[in-house]
Amino acid sequence: MTFGRDELGARLKRAQALMARHGLGALLLTTEPEVRYFTGYLTRFWESPTRPWFLLVPAQGEPVAVIPSIGEPVMRRTGLGDIRTWRSPNLEDDGVSLLADTIREIVGHAPVGLPDGHETHLRMPLKDLRRLGRTVNLASDFGIMRRLRMVKSEAEIALIRTACGIADRAFARVGEIARPGVPLERVFRDFQRLCLDEGADWVPYLAGGAGPLGYADVISPASATPLASGDVLMLDTGLVRQGYFCDFDRNFALGRPDPRAVSAHARLLEATAAAMEIARPGATAADLFHAMDRVLTGGTGGNDAGRYGHGLGMSLTEWPSLIPDDHTVLEAGMVLTLEPSVATEGANLLVHEENIVIRDGAPEALSTFATDLAVI
Amino acid sequence: MTFGRDELGARLKRAQALMARHGLGALLLTTEPEVRYFTGYLTRFWESPTRPWFLLVPAQGEPVAVIPSIGEPVMRRTGLGDIRTWRSPNLEDDGVSLLADTIREIVGHAPVGLPDGHETHLRMPLKDLRRLGRTVNLASDFGIMRRLRMVKSEAEIALIRTACGIADRAFARVGEIARPGVPLERVFRDFQRLCLDEGADWVPYLAGGAGPLGYADVISPASATPLASGDVLMLDTGLVRQGYFCDFDRNFALGRPDPRAVSAHARLLEATAAAMEIARPGATAADLFHAMDRVLTGGTGGNDAGRYGHGLGMSLTEWPSLIPDDHTVLEAGMVLTLEPSVATEGANLLVHEENIVIRDGAPEALSTFATDLAVI
Repeated sequence: MTFGRDELGARLKRAQALMARHGLGALLLTTEPEVRYFTGYLTRFWESPTRPWFLLVPAQGEPVAVIPSIGEPVMRRTGLGDIRTWRSPNLEDDGVSLLADTIREIVGHAPVGLPDGHETHLRMPLKDLRRLGRTVNLASDFGIMRRLRMVKSEAEIALIRTACGIADRAFARVGEIARPGVPLERVFRDFQRLCLDEGADWVPYLAGGAGPLGYADVISPASATPLASGDVLMLDTGLVRQGYFCDFDRNFALGRPDPRAVSAHARLLEATAAAMEIARPGATAADLFHAMDRVLTGGTGGNDAGRYGHGLGMSLTEWPSLIPDDHTVLEAGMVLTLEPSVATEGANLLVHEENIVIRDGAPEALSTFATDLAVI
Repeated sequence: MTFGRDELGARLKRAQALMARHGLGALLLTTEPEVRYFTGYLTRFWESPTRPWFLLVPAQGEPVAVIPSIGEPVMRRTGLGDIRTWRSPNLEDDGVSLLADTIREIVGHAPVGLPDGHETHLRMPLKDLRRLGRTVNLASDFGIMRRLRMVKSEAEIALIRTACGIADRAFARVGEIARPGVPLERVFRDFQRLCLDEGADWVPYLAGGAGPLGYADVISPASATPLASGDVLMLDTGLVRQGYFCDFDRNFALGRPDPRAVSAHARLLEATAAAMEIARPGATAADLFHAMDRVLTGGTGGNDAGRYGHGLGMSLTEWPSLIPDDHTVLEAGMVLTLEPSVATEGANLLVHEENIVIRDGAPEALSTFATDLAVI
């Protein structure tokens, strides 16, 4: 167990207070981070899309898991009392009747809130949702899960800090694996090995690119192209430790970098510093965007990447988004990435990313902030 | 590009023939394997749940991508001609209007099929689906994606074979990393490093367990418990190379194993062999289940794991399921796992898994079949 019952109990209490405000009888959750948020249920088995998993969080009382029997031993170890199972896969009825019966027993005909807004999806077949909707009063979760997960506890922040520390140490060793002539895909494999070596449980995300003036995109898998002297290599990782992510990148110059790359990178650090200056409770996500955009484009409104950072925690990316339209007011405990990007020349860009937590007063850095463009 | 346009063109043609049969104007796809199936679009960026991605596959003509602008450079490189983008995240309209306009332009009011059956989900906010449904004629995909993906091309089989070969080599090196006293979580980290070392692009799935008579479940993440002499250690990996998975496990005895574990393991190999005997075009998924279950339980119907194997390919698990109720008729080109499990004593079980492809005649082994319980 990553968390004690105290932490999970506090989450439940906050959820129930919000449910009462919105007149919900329960929340119905189907995705990995949502189920884990209230139970601590941690397994990589979600990689298999075959089976649906359900957690019912009632407005009063304890959560109830309605899950495939293959998951019962692991769910039992979380300490959850009420676990109802069926033998899945079942092609006729993959848990839907059991779930409907459970809902009727526990919440009657009160509305059951499903996460349905931005950055959510429902992890169950659409046909089964329709079937469930015929006997159960399905409603919106009114953004309750978003509100809950957006502000982290100290226990969660500690786990994200640990993940960031692992990535810090892996980034410090990139000189061991990257040099001119090494194919980028080899660097990607070796960097994941460094992350594991430094303590990652697994490495769900790695992207990057390389070129004298940066890279054409920031989401590519690795190509077989060998690194060249003068390239700027970027590696961006979301590694996991005990179910919590870091998400930041580093740029490395291989030998003497192009002065335009050096200057673009300096601008990225300047943008990050500008955001750090104002990242305080009461400022908004949009304020952070504009603080960075003034440095990066003179305030003309960003680029195709779409944003300059986002929330972070049980998922690689979470709410809010650092964009002009996101007026989420920052609160102490929100964990954010600051991720400014800047066009260099042609289709190329450079991206920089750090992880922070909003505090009363100045924010706390969770990643060890870069101070210049590293040369290896 | 993993595949040439020929391969992708053949997939499209098969899809369009099925769409015609069901009177669909298009398929609307939202998940990673579905979008990749018709485009070759490969990125780990799907790890971020923030942005929706859409691929419209019309009944005539080429697929159209409706995607966040951050993905355009990578999608462009697939060779797809019609790519429409919006700057995402957009809190007011995250691609929904652009998608609706595209659908109306390309398919008019003809029904648009969404994958909605077993083992599917829709990767977009429920609110956006409802909004789309107000202006677009949404329907079922009638299982078209299931039928298409279940039978693999030779190019796909070659990639799965490559992934299996990487895991084979990593499993052959487990003696380097596992010995009494080493915590299981260390073994998990080191095994992922071996997989990368042997050529995995990444390691999306690893589960396992250890004990003298097996393990209580097969989906646990690793604990800090050290391995002990006499333990049977199981490692089950789904590693990826060029976007295709293997999924098989190996059991290793640390020193002299309990005779009950040896005998249980022999039964697993016997069950696998029984399935191989009858795994021919024309047999059903259920037939494979029963062939294994006769060896494992005398034919009493399996256990809580729910099945004795499944499809495999772009996802860790795919259709069909080796269960009594799945009457899918096997066809040449279907890639399957054979995954018998057997209770040993108390709550413990042993699981064995191999990967095969159905051929005209005897099936081809994709993993190098285990011949006994390895002792290290």
